[in-house]
Amino acid sequence: MRLTQFRLCPFSRGVRLILGEFGLQPELVDVNPWRQPRELMLRNPGRTLPVLDLADGSSFLGFYAIAEFCADVQRSGSRVGVVLSGGGETTPSDRFGTTTTPAQPTPAEDYPNDITLLPDDLEDRAEVRRLVDWFALTCNREVTQELLIEKVRSVLERDATPPNAAMLRAARENRTHHLAYLGFLTDNRNWIGGDRFSLADIAAAAHLSTLDFIGEIDWAAHPQVKDWYQRIKSRPSFRPLLTDRVPGLIAPPHYADLDF
Amino acid sequence: MRLTQFRLCPFSRGVRLILGEFGLQPELVDVNPWRQPRELMLRNPGRTLPVLDLADGSSFLGFYAIAEFCADVQRSGSRVGVVLSGGGETTPSDRFGTTTTPAQPTPAEDYPNDITLLPDDLEDRAEVRRLVDWFALTCNREVTQELLIEKVRSVLERDATPPNAAMLRAARENRTHHLAYLGFLTDNRNWIGGDRFSLADIAAAAHLSTLDFIGEIDWAAHPQVKDWYQRIKSRPSFRPLLTDRVPGLIAPPHYADLDF
Repeated sequence: MRLTQFRLCPFSRGVRLILGEFGLQPELVDVNPWRQPRELMLRNPGRTLPVLDLADGSSFLGFYAIAEFCADVQRSGSRVGVVLSGGGETTPSDRFGTTTTPAQPTPAEDYPNDITLLPDDLEDRAEVRRLVDWFALTCNREVTQELLIEKVRSVLERDATPPNAAMLRAARENRTHHLAYLGFLTDNRNWIGGDRFSLADIAAAAHLSTLDFIGEIDWAAHPQVKDWYQRIKSRPSFRPLLTDRVPGLIAPPHYADLDF
Repeated sequence: MRLTQFRLCPFSRGVRLILGEFGLQPELVDVNPWRQPRELMLRNPGRTLPVLDLADGSSFLGFYAIAEFCADVQRSGSRVGVVLSGGGETTPSDRFGTTTTPAQPTPAEDYPNDITLLPDDLEDRAEVRRLVDWFALTCNREVTQELLIEKVRSVLERDATPPNAAMLRAARENRTHHLAYLGFLTDNRNWIGGDRFSLADIAAAAHLSTLDFIGEIDWAAHPQVKDWYQRIKSRPSFRPLLTDRVPGLIAPPHYADLDF
């Protein structure tokens, strides 16, 4: 299993969390999201990351298709870890990327039971999807992408323009509203989407972990969100994200600390 | 059934097409997407349109949640038109919007069979979702939203800044790439997502119809896309979109013409 991704892409992180919840750690192939290799663009003209290639030759592009595919597999009564790992071997490759990290086996005891990505009830499911959509569309466009473009792209792309102070200010203002609503949700529910951990928590945690890596979350100002994030951060699926490194960028010291 | 929406929002248009394919025309409540009523924002802090309220009191927010809910209903063996119309009556209301259009009954003979929003095969389904995601994330951010902000927001919001020439140019450059790929798909497939009409066609047609309304599609330059769009435009579900009016904006004469 191979995941073509970018370390700080919130959608890539979300898929890694999903796979991690099912005990899967794919081979990781890193690409620069703003300068994707031509071969990848031809397969994926939407330039949506990540791209998941399974051992049987099938490909799944983007968080939406991958997450709902895993939910479909669950609904069919199969175990996601078994279907996705397919029992086969992938050939390590760096066709697309600059660096690769080989797939890692995960001890089975870390995942006694599969989580349920989407609740059974159709209305509860719609609530989870509303929240996933909120992060994918609104939070991504107004906060995460803007801050990534201003703070990370200028490091990766040497000819990129330096951070734009007005854009940074607007994105941070938006971020405050998003965190306030997340605070409201975490104050009123056990998990973001309801009583149980779901795809909504994964989507939210993926965006927040990207923002945390680039030093854009003031945890002291959002104690309820911090409590919820601490629970997610302690899950085995989150561990690989805490060891991520991006050349040219240094995460704040608390980023990898479970007791931040 | 009530849909709170904006006429030129591609996600609102997509949901109207989905509902139309199942013979449903909800009551329409129009809002300004850039100045949403406070009561709506409290329900929907992601500010994602549209919002679908059913007669039984349940609500569904955003294209993703609504589309997948309809697909879930289909998968459960129920008919979407029956479940969503619920046999009840909604109370006409303009709580949120400035204008409302009452729900319209649709002659049953227009919809002899329900369409299938997502194919049965899991990989085929992932391909449809990849394309839906391409429009929701990439095309929306790079083309549709930018052109709407520059050309429509400045009309609806009197204090808005006039169109920014550099942003218009960048969005039009992106648009050319998206239309070229759509041309590739329509040249190689019967429908966008494969052999059969699907959610991918609906998502693509919704974005293109928004762009067409604001005079941003040069059909002569994209003949394969035009052939595909002409087939969609002739479907009964598309009719209500062709009569849309937006105060202060005039669609080009070919917009409502089936033989454009």
